[in-house]
Amino acid sequence: MPALSNARLTDLLGVPLPILQAPMAGATTPAMAIGAARAGGLGALACALFTPDQARSAAQAFRAAIDAPLNLNFFCHATPAADPVGALAWRAKLARYYVEAGLDPAQAPPDAGRAPFDDAFCALVEALRPEVVSFHFGLPDDHLVARVKAAGCKILSSATTVAEAQWLEAHGADAIIAMGAEAGGHRATFLPQFADHLVHGLDMAAQPGLFALLPQVVDAVTVPVIAAGGIADPRGVAAALALGACGVQVGTAYLFTPEAQVPAAHRAGLEDARDDNTMLTDVFTGRPARAVVNRLMLEMGPLGSQVPPFPTAGGAIAPLRRGGESRDFVNAWAGQSARLAPRTLDSHDLTRWLAGAT
Amino acid sequence: MPALSNARLTDLLGVPLPILQAPMAGATTPAMAIGAARAGGLGALACALFTPDQARSAAQAFRAAIDAPLNLNFFCHATPAADPVGALAWRAKLARYYVEAGLDPAQAPPDAGRAPFDDAFCALVEALRPEVVSFHFGLPDDHLVARVKAAGCKILSSATTVAEAQWLEAHGADAIIAMGAEAGGHRATFLPQFADHLVHGLDMAAQPGLFALLPQVVDAVTVPVIAAGGIADPRGVAAALALGACGVQVGTAYLFTPEAQVPAAHRAGLEDARDDNTMLTDVFTGRPARAVVNRLMLEMGPLGSQVPPFPTAGGAIAPLRRGGESRDFVNAWAGQSARLAPRTLDSHDLTRWLAGAT
Repeated sequence: MPALSNARLTDLLGVPLPILQAPMAGATTPAMAIGAARAGGLGALACALFTPDQARSAAQAFRAAIDAPLNLNFFCHATPAADPVGALAWRAKLARYYVEAGLDPAQAPPDAGRAPFDDAFCALVEALRPEVVSFHFGLPDDHLVARVKAAGCKILSSATTVAEAQWLEAHGADAIIAMGAEAGGHRATFLPQFADHLVHGLDMAAQPGLFALLPQVVDAVTVPVIAAGGIADPRGVAAALALGACGVQVGTAYLFTPEAQVPAAHRAGLEDARDDNTMLTDVFTGRPARAVVNRLMLEMGPLGSQVPPFPTAGGAIAPLRRGGESRDFVNAWAGQSARLAPRTLDSHDLTRWLAGAT
Repeated sequence: MPALSNARLTDLLGVPLPILQAPMAGATTPAMAIGAARAGGLGALACALFTPDQARSAAQAFRAAIDAPLNLNFFCHATPAADPVGALAWRAKLARYYVEAGLDPAQAPPDAGRAPFDDAFCALVEALRPEVVSFHFGLPDDHLVARVKAAGCKILSSATTVAEAQWLEAHGADAIIAMGAEAGGHRATFLPQFADHLVHGLDMAAQPGLFALLPQVVDAVTVPVIAAGGIADPRGVAAALALGACGVQVGTAYLFTPEAQVPAAHRAGLEDARDDNTMLTDVFTGRPARAVVNRLMLEMGPLGSQVPPFPTAGGAIAPLRRGGESRDFVNAWAGQSARLAPRTLDSHDLTRWLAGAT
């Protein structure tokens, strides 16, 4: 597999293998990132559910274990204005599930978490100086991008369309992740074409699969392109390189490693995941994400359910999860190639196997 | 490209190159099929909009021009029972467009055409003995499949999920086309998982992209697998082979050849097609198909518009097309990789170029 030595990307990232372990908020652990890095890939830590202190601890655990490049990942959504009317309407739609679960639907739900990249996180980046900082949902404000660059970090972000890839290149991304519609978890979409945040259906209906997106992104930008979405085995890596990618980012396959931190109901969903039973849904957080179909998705309709904006929708769902035991309400993020992922490899061995380097 | 010599498929089909020109009802012409066959690919004629006599004439034109394998393609949907209530409700939803166009909404619309494979078509196959017969929407009844096989024809059909691929293998397909969600035109879907024909949204939301579908189909069946959907240049061919395909079927790229028969509004849509402006819609025929977004799709909602069953929905749309001049109502079928297709190659040269054989 000669294209695996694609130096444009590996030189940029400072890693021997063009395999990026995807940052997955909640599921990624320092152990997962350390394993991927030991194998020669790029290890990543997802900070979207972390406080700055938690992010610092995770990064320090990585640094203590290995001298290798680290990718710190942040969400960069805008925090929505408070909308007590919409929030209560959402709770009213969910009230029957509360009653069914013996919970009081009138009780105030917890906050949804998921903090965007801000001054505090940027100060942390300046202190930790990770080799790579990646963003989801576009890029933060220009002055924050400039500070991250001044700290010596290479900047990655994901594009779900050619237009987004061109925007990211114009705004300072050093490499672009072309995220096919097959990918699990939150779509990176940040330039809606047809609709605002309350009507995700049209934009999501137009999202291109990786076979279409990847070569069109490669043709449209000059920075290296990383393929993501639907890649879970060495065939997918080879195909992505044939389409012009300089490397791949793999998420779902790492959820099967022993280093992943996955609630029981999510794990059960992953075990059941097939080519044709995941969908994009906004019911869990307010932003479209690919999950294994479950009761909440089917009963609310997976998209366009008039859910409140990201990330506020998630607060009212949280009490229904009952500690991650109930499949009905747990967001079992998974890509369409989950079935291709090995079930017995750890993060190190998975990374090597993906690269054809076992 | 050594994998291009994948003999499992080329031996089965009797062609030198593992490139299948897709049959596209309305757009495919004998000249297109002849060009593809002269190049060494498998030429195809789509019969869904033909009477048996028209199909015979087209096949004879092919036979007169070249001694090469021919693929005759048929739809095998069930003809729906008459539903005057649903039909009139559909006309009522469209009535405002009739008035806007100066047409009488009370006038009976034409029939929708699109005849399924039946005894008459089967008798034609027995007389013409095409080397390959391909079906869309599954396979016809077992006794018709048996007659086609007895005539010496190899049988192809398309799968949009692993479950459909397994069904096709069990019911006699000699090779299976794995049709990624990127593909233009009608989805081949015939085993709905979540919904009946009036609620296509859930099934379509779960359709896998080619990166995910193809290797999972390759793993699930023993017959050769042909990749389709999102392939419009040699990179896509190489990637499909890397994922385990024995060959590819290409549709949209052939719509740009001079041999294609494409109404002006469809051609305009194809010129505008990008990675992110096509959607699956059932408003044109009653079955989901990928088209460049236009006014009818946006105003009706692309899917789940309570349209009558395939193919009856199309009759009431036809008068609005005004001879194919109006973008607003013309079904501009296109895949997500239309932008990758060359604009100046004829069918012969496109076929050679796709195979890396120029």
